[in-house]
Amino acid sequence: VRAVLEATTAELARVGYSGLRMEDVAAKAGVNKTTIYRRWPTKPLLVGAAVRSHKGPVLDPPKRGSLRQDLLDLLSRANKRADTPEGQCVLRMLVQEADHPEVAALTHELRREHRAPWIDVVERAIAAGELPEGTDPEIVVELLVGIVTIRRLLHLHDPVPEGLLASAVELIVTGAQHGGAKRRGAASRRAVRSK
Amino acid sequence: VRAVLEATTAELARVGYSGLRMEDVAAKAGVNKTTIYRRWPTKPLLVGAAVRSHKGPVLDPPKRGSLRQDLLDLLSRANKRADTPEGQCVLRMLVQEADHPEVAALTHELRREHRAPWIDVVERAIAAGELPEGTDPEIVVELLVGIVTIRRLLHLHDPVPEGLLASAVELIVTGAQHGGAKRRGAASRRAVRSK
Repeated sequence: VRAVLEATTAELARVGYSGLRMEDVAAKAGVNKTTIYRRWPTKPLLVGAAVRSHKGPVLDPPKRGSLRQDLLDLLSRANKRADTPEGQCVLRMLVQEADHPEVAALTHELRREHRAPWIDVVERAIAAGELPEGTDPEIVVELLVGIVTIRRLLHLHDPVPEGLLASAVELIVTGAQHGGAKRRGAASRRAVRSK
Repeated sequence: VRAVLEATTAELARVGYSGLRMEDVAAKAGVNKTTIYRRWPTKPLLVGAAVRSHKGPVLDPPKRGSLRQDLLDLLSRANKRADTPEGQCVLRMLVQEADHPEVAALTHELRREHRAPWIDVVERAIAAGELPEGTDPEIVVELLVGIVTIRRLLHLHDPVPEGLLASAVELIVTGAQHGGAKRRGAASRRAVRSK
């Protein structure tokens, strides 16, 4: 099983979702094509299993320094992850999502999972009073994750300079600390929800 | 000439750079393949000519309201541009840059051209005292342009909600106003440069 999933990841990183062929995966894993079909009858099932098998430091919570340190730590790890076959495979799939509706549910699930430690860091900062009450973690995380994702999509093989990551954290955390990330109409939404 | 360049843009938007075939462009433009080869002997030359022929409102300076309004105006236009064949063609090429070194120089040139009005808005805000002295326009523009680019790459056919664009502008401008986008070591770099 592991050989097949690793071969699938490597092929996804090399040719992307649309270019993936079961026979190439079988050849690379050294198994028979029918062995793969028996367990994963369709391409979405095989790809889903491969991508869900990726685990690793990118999902661990940061070591709990200051808010800036924790966010920079998460950004650095995402940046390094993009150099692995798992990272390249996910980046390629993200871009192909628009053309392949069958991948959409999978990448949606992945994105939620990958964002969890980020959202957690921001929510802890709000609870600790490091960020003002009413701060929206989503916009903070979207902008920070975005800078690594876009850079790595545009320059797949060039790590983002650490200095740029630090500048992005500084700008966004400073903005959030001064109320720039507050939810608009949060009070009214709360009122509606409590009805 | 115009028919060929328009056909090239449409094909780029449909199949991307790697999938583009001279014969499909010729068929779509209703001309002979040799007519195209005579004027643009290689694919990079043809694609370069097509992309450089795109002009339009995305490159016009904004109408000069407040800094926030001007940036939101630029973001909205970039967002709408992504729905046109020109926009989809550029988005596709951006992502394929990593795999096609021959496209790199072209997209590099495009990016500079597209960023010019953004950089200009931020520099005017610094000159007018709306943003503090020493603010780095690059990081401000990178984060703002990034949010539209990444969203449109991930969801090619869904416009980014205007509310999200406004939230991004609010967070980043607030951060920059409070010194979060200041160049690090700007003083020392100036000292070196003045030698």
